[in-house]
Amino acid sequence: MSSTTPGPQETATFSMPTPHPDLLHLARSVRRSQRILGSLDGARRSEALRRLAALLETRSERILAANARDLEAAAASNLEKPLLKRLSLDRATLATLRDGALQLAAQPDPLGETIRHTLLDDGLTLRQVRSPLGVLLVIFESRPDVVVQIASLALRAGDGVILKGGSEAQASNRVLVACLRDALASEGLPTDAVALVEGRKAVAELLTMDESIDLVIPRGSGHLVRAIQSSTRIPVLGHADGICHLYLDTGADPAMASRLAVDGKCDYPAACNATETLLVHVGFLPHLPPVAKALVDAGVRLRACQASRSVLEAAGFESQPAADDDWRAEYGDLTLAIRVVDGLDEAVDHIHGYGSAHTEAIVTQNEEVAQAFLRRIDSASVFWNASTRFADGYRYGLGAEVGIATGRIHARGPVGVEGLLTTRWLLAGEGHAAADYGDGLRSFRHRPLPLSETRDSGYQRRETPMPMVTGSRST
Amino acid sequence: MSSTTPGPQETATFSMPTPHPDLLHLARSVRRSQRILGSLDGARRSEALRRLAALLETRSERILAANARDLEAAAASNLEKPLLKRLSLDRATLATLRDGALQLAAQPDPLGETIRHTLLDDGLTLRQVRSPLGVLLVIFESRPDVVVQIASLALRAGDGVILKGGSEAQASNRVLVACLRDALASEGLPTDAVALVEGRKAVAELLTMDESIDLVIPRGSGHLVRAIQSSTRIPVLGHADGICHLYLDTGADPAMASRLAVDGKCDYPAACNATETLLVHVGFLPHLPPVAKALVDAGVRLRACQASRSVLEAAGFESQPAADDDWRAEYGDLTLAIRVVDGLDEAVDHIHGYGSAHTEAIVTQNEEVAQAFLRRIDSASVFWNASTRFADGYRYGLGAEVGIATGRIHARGPVGVEGLLTTRWLLAGEGHAAADYGDGLRSFRHRPLPLSETRDSGYQRRETPMPMVTGSRST
Repeated sequence: MSSTTPGPQETATFSMPTPHPDLLHLARSVRRSQRILGSLDGARRSEALRRLAALLETRSERILAANARDLEAAAASNLEKPLLKRLSLDRATLATLRDGALQLAAQPDPLGETIRHTLLDDGLTLRQVRSPLGVLLVIFESRPDVVVQIASLALRAGDGVILKGGSEAQASNRVLVACLRDALASEGLPTDAVALVEGRKAVAELLTMDESIDLVIPRGSGHLVRAIQSSTRIPVLGHADGICHLYLDTGADPAMASRLAVDGKCDYPAACNATETLLVHVGFLPHLPPVAKALVDAGVRLRACQASRSVLEAAGFESQPAADDDWRAEYGDLTLAIRVVDGLDEAVDHIHGYGSAHTEAIVTQNEEVAQAFLRRIDSASVFWNASTRFADGYRYGLGAEVGIATGRIHARGPVGVEGLLTTRWLLAGEGHAAADYGDGLRSFRHRPLPLSETRDSGYQRRETPMPMVTGSRST
Repeated sequence: MSSTTPGPQETATFSMPTPHPDLLHLARSVRRSQRILGSLDGARRSEALRRLAALLETRSERILAANARDLEAAAASNLEKPLLKRLSLDRATLATLRDGALQLAAQPDPLGETIRHTLLDDGLTLRQVRSPLGVLLVIFESRPDVVVQIASLALRAGDGVILKGGSEAQASNRVLVACLRDALASEGLPTDAVALVEGRKAVAELLTMDESIDLVIPRGSGHLVRAIQSSTRIPVLGHADGICHLYLDTGADPAMASRLAVDGKCDYPAACNATETLLVHVGFLPHLPPVAKALVDAGVRLRACQASRSVLEAAGFESQPAADDDWRAEYGDLTLAIRVVDGLDEAVDHIHGYGSAHTEAIVTQNEEVAQAFLRRIDSASVFWNASTRFADGYRYGLGAEVGIATGRIHARGPVGVEGLLTTRWLLAGEGHAAADYGDGLRSFRHRPLPLSETRDSGYQRRETPMPMVTGSRST
C-alpha cells in the first residue's frame, strides 16, 4: 500500500521509521472498521463467511489465473523452490479454503460468550465476555492461502486484519483480498476491516504502530519471525524455532521408540514439530541399534554424542560427531542429533537449556517417569508415547490454526480462533455507587451465576424491576 | 542487587544497556527455581503461604521497625506526600497481607487444572492444563505491601518473581523478602524463586532480559508505566492511564445520574477508575443543573464544553472552559470535564478517540441504548447504571489483584491469579505416529471429554491397557 518498492536486501532487524501518513490512515481505518464489525450481530459475520466461500467458487478461474501470473514471474526470477511450492494455488487448495470458511460460518459466534458470571450484590451483575482482540497484522511470504485462512478466522472473531504479503504473491493476494472485501460489502459490513499492504518498506513502519495494531502474526521462516520479534513492541504470536526432542527413557518399549523416532523425524522433516534431537537414557543404550537401523533405513543421517557414537559404531552404524551447535539445530531435513543422558533430570535440563519450548515427547512404559516428564517440561506441548508431529491445531481439534506460539503470554501451542479473542467485563447495576461499600452500608456477595444465556452479544436481560439502591450517601 | 546507586534523574525511557553478569545470573537462577517450584505439589506451595502468614505475624515488630527507618529517612529527604503515605506499613496492613496469604493457601491449586480435554483417537488423549506463566518482574515505588501481595499470588501460580523496589522502601522490602524466602526454605522449596533487586540502574538492564523474564508488572505512576512500556519488548501488564467516562443518556434517571457522577469522581479521585469526563446527551441537558449541584456540593470543579457551559451558567454554576487537552486528562483530583454529545454515536467516538480503554459507564433507563453501549465500547470494563469505581479485582470477586490491564493481549481489566498463568498441552498416546493419519489409515475422532480429574498436576491416568496401534507404516 504505502510503497511497492521492495527494500534493498534482507536485514536481521527492521529499523524504526516514522510511518507514512497513508499507512497510519489505513491502520486507523482498519481499527474503526473492526470496531463496527466486532459490535455487529454474529449472524452477519457468518453470512459474510458463506459469501466468501461462494466467491472462492465463482471466481476460481480468476484466482488461478492470477496465481499463474505470480508463478510465472517467480519462475523467471528464480525464486527458491520451497517458496515456489508454497506460492502455488490449485483447485484442491481453494476447496479446502472454502470448506474452512463454511465450517467457521457454521460455528457458534464466540463474541459475547460469557466465561465468568458473578452476582456482586443484589441487582449488580458482572459478566466477563469474549470480545474481538482488535487489529491483527499478518506478515507472510508466498502462501496466498494464508490470506483467506487467517482473514476467515479474523472475521469469525470480529477482528480487523492488515495483510502484508510478499511481492512474489502480489496478483494472487490482490484477487483473494478482493473476494474478502466484496464478501464484507455484500453483507453491509465495513470493507476496510481487511486491508492488503504491499512493499517491504511498509513492514518496518507497521511494526512501530502499536497504537493501531494489537498482535503481529508472522507466517514464514524463523529468520523472518526473529527479525520481527526484535523490531517491535507489539506482541508477536508464533515461533522462531521448533527444536523438538524425543526422550527414550530406560523404560521405553523398543519398537515404539523406533516407530516414534522415525515418525517424528521423517513424516515431514521441514515442519516445526519434527523431532530434531533424540535424547537416550543410558539404560536404553542396548536398544539403540535397532532404533538407529529404522532411522537409517528411512534415510536419516545421525549426528551423535560420544557415548552414543560408540554404541552405534559397535553395531555398524555410521554417524557424525555432534557438537554443541547440534543441540540448538533445527535441521529441517533428514538429519537427527542423538545424545545420551543419565536420567530424567539431565533430559529435562538439556531440553530447557537447548530447546525452543515448542514440543517434547517421552517414550516410556513407566507411568511415574512419564508423569514427572509431563509435569516438569516447560514447553507448549508435552507428549507421552506419541510423535512430536501431533503438535498442530488441526490434529488438536481446534479447527483452523493461526500458528503455533512458543511464548507464554496470551496463547501457547497451536492457536485457533481463541487466540484472536480477548475479553471485556460488563457490569449492570441499578445505580450502585462504590462509596456505599466502603462505608460498610453494603457488602459484596460474590455469588457465581450460571453461564447460561451466554450468546447475546452484550449483557444479560434484567430479571427484576429497577428499584434505586437504598442507603446511598452520595445523593 | 546489581547496584544500589540511584540514577542521576528520571527519564522518559530507559536505555537498552547490556545486563550486568550478576543480574543475568540472578534472573537465570529465578527461572531455574521457578521451574522447580511450578512442578512441585500444590500442597507444598499452600504450606509455604501459611508459613509466610505466620512469619508476618511473628516478625511484625521487625517489619514495622524496618518500615519506621524507611519512613524516617524518607521524611528527612522530603519524599512527596503521596509516596510517603504509600510507604507506610501498620498492623492493619500486615493483617490484610496475612489474610491474603491464608486465603490463597486455602484456594484450590490452579496448576494442572484441565481447561480442555479431547479424545483425538482411541488411546490418544489431549489435555490443555493451566501452568505457571514463568518469571515476573515487578517494578514498584514505595508500597512495600506490594512485595507480599504479588509474591503471594506468584507462589500460588508457581511463578518466580523478581522484585525491583525503590530505595525509599529498602529496609521494609528487605525484611519482607526475607519472610518470603524463609517461608519457601521452610517447606524445602527453592528460595531463589523470589529475588529482590535494588538500584535504578538495574531496571533498564532487567527490561532487556526477555529470555529470562516473561511479564513485567509495574506498580506506580502512569509516568513509570509509560517509561517501562516504551523501553522493553517484554509484555507489560498494567495501564498508564485511567481516563474513565460516565455517559448520561437522554434516558438517564436524573437522581441516579447525580449519584453516579458524584461517586465516580469523589469516592477516591486519585484512583485509576475515577470518572474523569462526563459525557452528556443533549437531551439530558435540562437535567444537568441538579447533577452539577451535587458535584459542586461535593467540592468538584467543572471544566465544560461551550454547550454545557451555557446551561451551567444559566443555572448559576461556575465552570472553566474545557480545551482538547481536558478530554485526555486524568485529573486525579476533584476536577471533572463535561462535554455535550448529540447521541450514542458521538459518545462512542469520543470515548474511543480520547479514552484509555480502562472503564466507561452509561446511565440510562433505556435498555436498547444500554445494550448498544455495552456492545460497542471497546474498553476493558463497560458498565450500565453503576459507578466506574467498581472496576477493581476485589470488587469483581477475583480475590487479590495484580493490577488492571488496559491492553488486549493475555489479560484485560482487573487481573487476579489467572493473569499469572499460562497453559500447556499434554498428549498421552500408545505409540501413535502422525504418518498413519496422513495415509488415511486412521482418522481423528476429536471427541470432547469431561474436564473431571482436573486437579492432578500432569496428565490423566490411562483407563485402558496399552496395545500397540496397528496399521503402522513406520516400524
